[in-house]
Amino acid sequence: MRPIITLTTDFGLDDPFVGIMKGVILKIAPEARLIDITHNIEPQNIAQAALVLESSYSYFPQGTVHMLVVDPGVGGNRRPLAVNSRGHYFVAPDNGILSPVLDKEAQCFELTEKKFFLESISNTFHGRDVFAPSAAWIAQGKDLSDLGGKISDPQTLDVPQPIIEGKTIRGQIIYIDRFGNLTTNIGVDLLQKHLGPNQKPVVHIGGKKITGLCASYSENSENSENSEAPEGQASALVNSWNRLEIFIREDNAAEKLRLRVGDAVSVDADESKP
Amino acid sequence: MRPIITLTTDFGLDDPFVGIMKGVILKIAPEARLIDITHNIEPQNIAQAALVLESSYSYFPQGTVHMLVVDPGVGGNRRPLAVNSRGHYFVAPDNGILSPVLDKEAQCFELTEKKFFLESISNTFHGRDVFAPSAAWIAQGKDLSDLGGKISDPQTLDVPQPIIEGKTIRGQIIYIDRFGNLTTNIGVDLLQKHLGPNQKPVVHIGGKKITGLCASYSENSENSENSEAPEGQASALVNSWNRLEIFIREDNAAEKLRLRVGDAVSVDADESKP
Amino acid sequence: MRPIITLTTDFGLDDPFVGIMKGVILKIAPEARLIDITHNIEPQNIAQAALVLESSYSYFPQGTVHMLVVDPGVGGNRRPLAVNSRGHYFVAPDNGILSPVLDKEAQCFELTEKKFFLESISNTFHGRDVFAPSAAWIAQGKDLSDLGGKISDPQTLDVPQPIIEGKTIRGQIIYIDRFGNLTTNIGVDLLQKHLGPNQKPVVHIGGKKITGLCASYSENSENSENSEAPEGQASALVNSWNRLEIFIREDNAAEKLRLRVGDAVSVDADESKP
Repeated sequence: MRPIITLTTDFGLDDPFVGIMKGVILKIAPEARLIDITHNIEPQNIAQAALVLESSYSYFPQGTVHMLVVDPGVGGNRRPLAVNSRGHYFVAPDNGILSPVLDKEAQCFELTEKKFFLESISNTFHGRDVFAPSAAWIAQGKDLSDLGGKISDPQTLDVPQPIIEGKTIRGQIIYIDRFGNLTTNIGVDLLQKHLGPNQKPVVHIGGKKITGLCASYSENSENSENSEAPEGQASALVNSWNRLEIFIREDNAAEKLRLRVGDAVSVDADESKP
Repeated sequence: MRPIITLTTDFGLDDPFVGIMKGVILKIAPEARLIDITHNIEPQNIAQAALVLESSYSYFPQGTVHMLVVDPGVGGNRRPLAVNSRGHYFVAPDNGILSPVLDKEAQCFELTEKKFFLESISNTFHGRDVFAPSAAWIAQGKDLSDLGGKISDPQTLDVPQPIIEGKTIRGQIIYIDRFGNLTTNIGVDLLQKHLGPNQKPVVHIGGKKITGLCASYSENSENSENSEAPEGQASALVNSWNRLEIFIREDNAAEKLRLRVGDAVSVDADESKP
Repeated sequence: MRPIITLTTDFGLDDPFVGIMKGVILKIAPEARLIDITHNIEPQNIAQAALVLESSYSYFPQGTVHMLVVDPGVGGNRRPLAVNSRGHYFVAPDNGILSPVLDKEAQCFELTEKKFFLESISNTFHGRDVFAPSAAWIAQGKDLSDLGGKISDPQTLDVPQPIIEGKTIRGQIIYIDRFGNLTTNIGVDLLQKHLGPNQKPVVHIGGKKITGLCASYSENSENSENSEAPEGQASALVNSWNRLEIFIREDNAAEKLRLRVGDAVSVDADESKP
């Protein structure tokens, strides 16, 4: 009844671009609720936007329309898409940004019906001219099939997967948040499957060795008594995205350890203990 | 019925100032929709805010109230204004920020009726004490003439206009966006009028020469076959504001070319081709 | 009927954390109005968040739910709280962040009823798992006593108070805004009580001496004719939070004077004039 539209872009908040898209949406869908996920995706970083989508969409009610515009190919040949997956709607360029929701059940449509775009379409701002009006029409109840024809070959990203080498899990940093905490592509499931039930993980990252996991940012990793994490020292935990994360208590791990997205992390089982 | 109020300021998003203004508005107009255009106008840069207004207001529905607070003269003698123009409402200090909508049909009122302000008025935060409550009352349906007397001499900015010198258009950079793309004051109309129908423009900027226009960021300028724009090299196109823009594909042109707002750009017709 | 929820955090706007919390809220309270106060609190700076709360909450309608998440102790022993004070609701960790509203009449409850949290509770993101759903249920009309038991010992901050030494008020800088203006902990009440009715204050800060107060940023301090404040020179006024503030006209006082939160400021009465 009062549809929600989320917005994720690399437009930043300095320019009026985001506000302009919201104006376009409200002209078509006056009752829409507009929720910013983030507009500070690194310019043209499609993989980062896909990760943001993966971590956020499911916290919204079913029927939410998620609009993502990180679009280095704007004005070129890449197709504009609308997707129905897992009870949510998605509107975005066909460049892999929707990878996390493109499972077998996902229904993908190419946005071709110009009557649902703005009348005049620029070659540089499809967020305003194509994606915003399409998202608004979907929020107003239009079927995706009204907006264009079905397609079966949407672009997907090659997401780097962790590799098992003997007793070692080899992964990498895939996301760094505001606090400098380092999210890896090693999920809690893999960790649990690879380690024995009483084995502590030993994490190697940036020349540091971390033994054991903390329960939280304010606890340390060396024992089960939950004493406090030592300040200034790298620690590890399973974070709110259910992934292995490296942090330094009340400090910025990315800066302190000089690490970036793509840098290596590995996990072994602690051999010294059962 | 559910009026929209847009907000454009130089208050930034670090301080609670924007949130406070929204609280003031919602106390008076509980149903108002509050849409941020941007709060990152360069401190006290009235010309930048005017350009943001020009590029954004018309994408909102008729009847929207646009509130702009870039107000170096707060607490001094400058008048607070409410303006009705082109079916939209505008609330702002009288310092030229509303220039883009101050045409002959615009109706301008000085906000003088203190009963529509907060009870206690500071000398430093009229966004909270004067403009937010006035915008809210307009959203609630108050006539502008209820808020103060009509005036006929609102301040306007001297916007730098391009100059024609023989076969050359001389303009300047007026806006730089998050991506470092350089918007100029040379509009597509002037470009089309000045160039012959088959003549390519030759753009000179920052010691670089750019021949021809790209159709989009992912296409180059040298031919009509739409091959890709060379990376690392300055290119030009007509942007989503219908202005000549200089960009570097997947790079920051402002940083690479070391150019700023106010720097010169010129356009000639390519003499080598018909 | 359409409850307002304000959000104040140190999560920043680069990551999807704020958007995720809003999704959680809208699943529970579909009609809630979500207003950002700021998400750029300095990481883990509880005192700064408390000051932001103090300056903002009362501008919102009675019944507003204010959610604050600056939470260095997340996952540890600190209690999650819901508070009813002065007709407003507050949801936050029990770390002193709510100090400005914790007067004798404030009713404080520890959030213990897990049925009002998300089903799975992480150790690192209680904003999403605990505070957002609790705020949403309060906005939906739940009594605070439904969410947990009453407590009488919430944490409070030691806020630095100005000291009177003979004829001198000794205070400090407590907040620096986007413009570099320096808010002190010296309130207008103390100033008026300490100075004679016709005495001008003499402010000492960062090696500078400022005589008299300006009425506004565009007026100077040396006389009553309201001539303009000299550019490039430190001036003082009573700001919109009713506190003594040091500023430099159209410049950044914090940078120019190299001053930070905690630095000293003192005020004497001008002895040379009556």
